[in-house]
Amino acid sequence: MPDPEGHPAPEEMDLRTVLHALADPLRYQVIAALAAAPENTERTCASFALPVSKSTLTHHFRVLRESGLVQQVDRGNSRMAALRRAELDARFPGLLDLVAANQPLDH
Amino acid sequence: MPDPEGHPAPEEMDLRTVLHALADPLRYQVIAALAAAPENTERTCASFALPVSKSTLTHHFRVLRESGLVQQVDRGNSRMAALRRAELDARFPGLLDLVAANQPLDH
Repeated sequence: MPDPEGHPAPEEMDLRTVLHALADPLRYQVIAALAAAPENTERTCASFALPVSKSTLTHHFRVLRESGLVQQVDRGNSRMAALRRAELDARFPGLLDLVAANQPLDH
Repeated sequence: MPDPEGHPAPEEMDLRTVLHALADPLRYQVIAALAAAPENTERTCASFALPVSKSTLTHHFRVLRESGLVQQVDRGNSRMAALRRAELDARFPGLLDLVAANQPLDH
């Protein structure tokens, strides 16, 4: 079962759900940035400077969280997002490498 | 440039476009079936028995064709679809293996 915040366990991750999460250009941009960043990088949602409202931003991170792509955690007053790299690499080998190698050109 | 039927050249294939094409459950089902089939398998669109109208079926295969996932070719009276396996493997290594390894459970 997903945890109370909606993070699925690795065995609950579904490739189609992950691909759907990645199919949105803004969400793809977030994952491509995290996949190219050093391991264990944590960033706030706002740090990605996506051109959307706060509620839309919240929606996009919920989709990312519920697909299993990112883990969100509170650090003091900040909510941080990190790629679930090790679990994703184990569950869907090569997927994050593909995303890291195919950075969006239009951002 | 894509050919007159909308097939992109390998260097024109875009991972986000491919992921978008795969994010639909019916299109995923088609690609998962082709990815698990012997190399150079050609099938008619109708052979996938998708529960949609002919115009919707045509739409889904257009999305698959324009993303680069499938090649469509006329054989006599039949229009056949085949996975562009070699080109996809070269362009996005591991992607089709992931899809073949993650068959839909609900079909």
